[in-house]
Amino acid sequence: MRKQLMKGNEAIVRSAILAGCRAFYGYPITPASEIAEDAALYMPQAGGVFLQAESEVAAMNMIYGAASAGVRSMSASSGPGISLMQEGISYMAGAELPCVIADITRGGPGLGNIAAEQGDYHQVVKGGGHGNYRTIVLAPHSVQEMADLTALAFELADRYRNPVVVLADGFIGQMMEPVEFPQTAVAPHTPAYAVTGTEETRGNLITSLHLDIDDMEAHQGKMEAKYRQAEEHEVRAEELHTEDAEIVLVGYGIMGRILKAVAAEARADGLKVGVLRPITLYPFPKLHLKRLAKSAKVFIVVEMSNGQMVEDVRLALNGARPVEFYSRVGGNVPSHDEVLKFVRGQARRHLPEMLRERECAANV
Amino acid sequence: MRKQLMKGNEAIVRSAILAGCRAFYGYPITPASEIAEDAALYMPQAGGVFLQAESEVAAMNMIYGAASAGVRSMSASSGPGISLMQEGISYMAGAELPCVIADITRGGPGLGNIAAEQGDYHQVVKGGGHGNYRTIVLAPHSVQEMADLTALAFELADRYRNPVVVLADGFIGQMMEPVEFPQTAVAPHTPAYAVTGTEETRGNLITSLHLDIDDMEAHQGKMEAKYRQAEEHEVRAEELHTEDAEIVLVGYGIMGRILKAVAAEARADGLKVGVLRPITLYPFPKLHLKRLAKSAKVFIVVEMSNGQMVEDVRLALNGARPVEFYSRVGGNVPSHDEVLKFVRGQARRHLPEMLRERECAANV
Amino acid sequence: MRKQLMKGNEAIVRSAILAGCRAFYGYPITPASEIAEDAALYMPQAGGVFLQAESEVAAMNMIYGAASAGVRSMSASSGPGISLMQEGISYMAGAELPCVIADITRGGPGLGNIAAEQGDYHQVVKGGGHGNYRTIVLAPHSVQEMADLTALAFELADRYRNPVVVLADGFIGQMMEPVEFPQTAVAPHTPAYAVTGTEETRGNLITSLHLDIDDMEAHQGKMEAKYRQAEEHEVRAEELHTEDAEIVLVGYGIMGRILKAVAAEARADGLKVGVLRPITLYPFPKLHLKRLAKSAKVFIVVEMSNGQMVEDVRLALNGARPVEFYSRVGGNVPSHDEVLKFVRGQARRHLPEMLRERECAANV
Amino acid sequence: MRKQLMKGNEAIVRSAILAGCRAFYGYPITPASEIAEDAALYMPQAGGVFLQAESEVAAMNMIYGAASAGVRSMSASSGPGISLMQEGISYMAGAELPCVIADITRGGPGLGNIAAEQGDYHQVVKGGGHGNYRTIVLAPHSVQEMADLTALAFELADRYRNPVVVLADGFIGQMMEPVEFPQTAVAPHTPAYAVTGTEETRGNLITSLHLDIDDMEAHQGKMEAKYRQAEEHEVRAEELHTEDAEIVLVGYGIMGRILKAVAAEARADGLKVGVLRPITLYPFPKLHLKRLAKSAKVFIVVEMSNGQMVEDVRLALNGARPVEFYSRVGGNVPSHDEVLKFVRGQARRHLPEMLRERECAANV
Repeated sequence: MRKQLMKGNEAIVRSAILAGCRAFYGYPITPASEIAEDAALYMPQAGGVFLQAESEVAAMNMIYGAASAGVRSMSASSGPGISLMQEGISYMAGAELPCVIADITRGGPGLGNIAAEQGDYHQVVKGGGHGNYRTIVLAPHSVQEMADLTALAFELADRYRNPVVVLADGFIGQMMEPVEFPQTAVAPHTPAYAVTGTEETRGNLITSLHLDIDDMEAHQGKMEAKYRQAEEHEVRAEELHTEDAEIVLVGYGIMGRILKAVAAEARADGLKVGVLRPITLYPFPKLHLKRLAKSAKVFIVVEMSNGQMVEDVRLALNGARPVEFYSRVGGNVPSHDEVLKFVRGQARRHLPEMLRERECAANV
Repeated sequence: MRKQLMKGNEAIVRSAILAGCRAFYGYPITPASEIAEDAALYMPQAGGVFLQAESEVAAMNMIYGAASAGVRSMSASSGPGISLMQEGISYMAGAELPCVIADITRGGPGLGNIAAEQGDYHQVVKGGGHGNYRTIVLAPHSVQEMADLTALAFELADRYRNPVVVLADGFIGQMMEPVEFPQTAVAPHTPAYAVTGTEETRGNLITSLHLDIDDMEAHQGKMEAKYRQAEEHEVRAEELHTEDAEIVLVGYGIMGRILKAVAAEARADGLKVGVLRPITLYPFPKLHLKRLAKSAKVFIVVEMSNGQMVEDVRLALNGARPVEFYSRVGGNVPSHDEVLKFVRGQARRHLPEMLRERECAANV
Repeated sequence: MRKQLMKGNEAIVRSAILAGCRAFYGYPITPASEIAEDAALYMPQAGGVFLQAESEVAAMNMIYGAASAGVRSMSASSGPGISLMQEGISYMAGAELPCVIADITRGGPGLGNIAAEQGDYHQVVKGGGHGNYRTIVLAPHSVQEMADLTALAFELADRYRNPVVVLADGFIGQMMEPVEFPQTAVAPHTPAYAVTGTEETRGNLITSLHLDIDDMEAHQGKMEAKYRQAEEHEVRAEELHTEDAEIVLVGYGIMGRILKAVAAEARADGLKVGVLRPITLYPFPKLHLKRLAKSAKVFIVVEMSNGQMVEDVRLALNGARPVEFYSRVGGNVPSHDEVLKFVRGQARRHLPEMLRERECAANV
Repeated sequence: MRKQLMKGNEAIVRSAILAGCRAFYGYPITPASEIAEDAALYMPQAGGVFLQAESEVAAMNMIYGAASAGVRSMSASSGPGISLMQEGISYMAGAELPCVIADITRGGPGLGNIAAEQGDYHQVVKGGGHGNYRTIVLAPHSVQEMADLTALAFELADRYRNPVVVLADGFIGQMMEPVEFPQTAVAPHTPAYAVTGTEETRGNLITSLHLDIDDMEAHQGKMEAKYRQAEEHEVRAEELHTEDAEIVLVGYGIMGRILKAVAAEARADGLKVGVLRPITLYPFPKLHLKRLAKSAKVFIVVEMSNGQMVEDVRLALNGARPVEFYSRVGGNVPSHDEVLKFVRGQARRHLPEMLRERECAANV
């Protein structure tokens, strides 16, 4: 199949349908609206359902219903809409139901603006809903990954019977790049736990209610076991020049792209800089960080937030190495130049000897 | 004023009215329902408004309106309802509006059960809504504190123009203890930013919308400055036997009570055990922990969750000392005995010399 | 008290508060929005509650609650909002709860436009909600009547424990006229059936549920008895020149004003024309019509609808006299001239002898 | 095709699918729930959509969307739910969109009970929503008619681009009878006015908004022309023994069945009794009544309501013949015996000569 040029938001829908998704419930919001628009167009063509619900609260509950019936289902929204989905997400995790939610972030709390930000990390990764549960979170940094990670999201959602979030931002949602889809499509199939209205599925029980406290504890133990398994098997991250890196830049999504360019330039400049780009935000690549901490001297986290993923980096390193933080918010994206300047500053501070070596080499 | 015997949930309402709160919007849910019930009874008597909204989404938006008009307002709920409030909380933080929300937690994700748990820490403390914002979080461990911290919550909400959450659980909400209220009541007054429908307030603008990205960044900068100020001035924690503690137990709310009893018994048993009970969960008592890390050898966090506050303890200590974790979930509360056993186990592991000393002393 | 110049919509709110109304729940809609606006301003000043609900469905259910607690309550809206209230109105009638709803009509079905029309007669007078019930309907034709009939509406609502609608249109809602209010205000008082949360009212039951069919029939019998009583005692209509009228014009609200001017001119022209302006649309002035049918030769109904009140006129006359119908819709108001022309045409058709007499008199 | 034994509610769904209906949005309510249940089962099998909305308000707006896209769509409910649909029904009529709504009535206003009543006639036939519009109303009296009139409803909805209501009651919905379906199914097809997201349909405008008052009047004129056409072409009624009837019983739905039995017995008893059973309630069989009034002496309307259809009978006869009324409400169905007794009483009153003849004949 030849590559097709399309927006990240479009790639999500195409990939979802190829992954066997047959139900989309949602409500449009900038910068996620193309997802609803394309779902409205293509879902019916694939024999699926598109429905614009009266609110994101309703959409999420419809997904609960569709997922209970064994249909691969998804929604998409941005900040305010994702907030409205938190109750439903908690219910789905509690009832062990799979679904995929694309969160194409916008800026600021409240109404904010429609520019790209990464201020929803805590909400999405730590759990904006109530109770002990996690959502698996995938963070694409290109249109190709919008497609690939959406497909993966449906696989993981089913494998762990848990909601999975594809967390991107307006840049990745709106930008166009060539993308390649798999040659084969996943045929919709009904899992054994589904309640489909037939005699055979009458005994299936889908619920998040566990009135007995020991039952509830056992149920959460089962959920935790799944999360431990995901932490063992599903961690994904991209590394660049990390083999000999003394400075490791950490950033996800659109920041990952910028950091890779910054690292290349810093390298050209003689600084041993590498990049760790988490692809799964939960489970977080803790072991990657611990491994890199053996050689790297300092970690620099760059986020478009008030400092959220940086906590997970610090938790992973647990004081083994210093962790510095740089950010812009409100829709301002840290530019290549300002990040590079920050990296040099931190190099001077933490690695004076590296700079000296570089200067010596330069003087030769 | 003599002490009155009452439930924690009742104390919240009495205290709120004395603190000048004159609007309650909410929807009943176990184990928070007495708050709505008492608000329905007492708010009108105080010339205030009680309204049972059609959902927690609606309730939160009503609070947005009342707070915009300068009225001290509150709601109360438990897990599922708090999830439904996340959009509104983010809007209020973004629009710099004060309000108080009592979260009397129940068990599990989804419907779960009505037993006490501490699984909503991430949601409440890290931010369940979208965007870069924080809520101040107060965690009472007695009926008296339900009253005192509710009063404080209204003060902090106004001082920082930000939502404040009183995070308790079903035990503290339902249990009865004698409680003393202040002799004087706060008279409702209208802040200068309020929009009250008068000519003078016509120019006031309350919004979370900042379309320009530099405006948005500046606004978030202003919010962050408030949060830094709160982190400097508003941290509260209770310490017990920490002066010479080699083992510091950390727990909040109902766990704090249990840990104090455990510490007393461990002390009697010759173990140098102290307790740190965070009263503010945000801002978190990081400096307390850093100070204690100078002398203490190990920290033991006990939570009724899958491990949430423990992350804040680890972030504060940043690897300076080992942090151990013990928990029960689903409504099971770690008992005095099982915590004591865990403490002894950790003492053996981390402090063999302390145990030896104790044994020597015992042998004398 | 001196007369005050104000809009009809404003007069409703002032009158409501003087009538002891202390709760307004609603949602703004043109051309009724000034009612919500003024209620927001004045209700709190009178110690009452104003609340903008999240929809008219919610507003009506809040009124159900307030009325159950014995508070005189009201809402206001226009077509689409009134449609959304139908479920709640049926519930209130069934539970025998009083309330007042101001319906300031707009044009067309659906979104239509914001011009004045009388196309909601069937909805309001015959019952847009489900089941056997009626609402008392008052139709003011001046700002003074907006005040007077609102006060009456609260009296009738309490007397019959049933919803009462004040049905006006954008003209009467928006136009300004001097209006005089009563010197004394009705003090809010709590009726015996109210459920106020006290020990004494614990036994009160407010419900529209009657599972047993004989109970249900008995309950409806009781309701019908009330409606018969209202039909006997509460009929109100204005008559002009009806003593010797051979042609009776029938119209309500803004049409009543126009018909009175038409009648005056027709009289000047030698036609014996009178006007019957129903003030209560339910109960409908059937006996007035029957009495007039003894002398009048033809009735002309003029409505800004597709023919709705005309059915009640025909039902009342039951074939005793011909009933002609003239209307404009969409926001077009039948003008003085076009109505006069229609009247002359009908006179020629039904009363050739009257015209001959007039011509003879003119020839003298 | 052989006849199949099934409930009336089931027959509706089967017939709808055969009629090309491919979208069902609704919310279950006794005694209409089997319709939602069967739609949930069969719609997906037919490649259609079933969705349980979060309320009837939402369901009706989803139908608006589906109908805009040219899909034959339906919902089903009972009293309270039908009330919640009134806003949407008015919007659909205003936007000239077809849909079919099955109203399986229950008893009483408000919550009432789940027994059969005919108290929603005014709501459904006169228009419970706002503005000048009508819905075509079909009233089946058997399971076979549940099927046949549902098929007709879809035809009429499309022909007149207007909502059509199938008005039945719990008896007809719940009772089982053999029913025969057509051998051929209507293939779903997309009408020219639909907006389907394609280039060609981009110019199609579906709206009920007409801000200009002359446009609004012209639009309503177009709607009225459609209604006049329906009144001319679509009236349906069943007559029994009316050729020589001196007494005509009028009743619809389940009452029609009882009246036919009563007429048979009255005939055996020597009374010339016939039955008119309106099948279309709007357009109402006015001409049938006028024709029968030429020979019949008295009309007796029997309803399970407080007197609603009787108004349409009186309007049609306009005083030409006396109209008597008998009813039971609350779920009590007028029995064969009590109706027969009432008929005899009215015969004595209005037709003493007929009774005398009968007595003479009996004496022979």
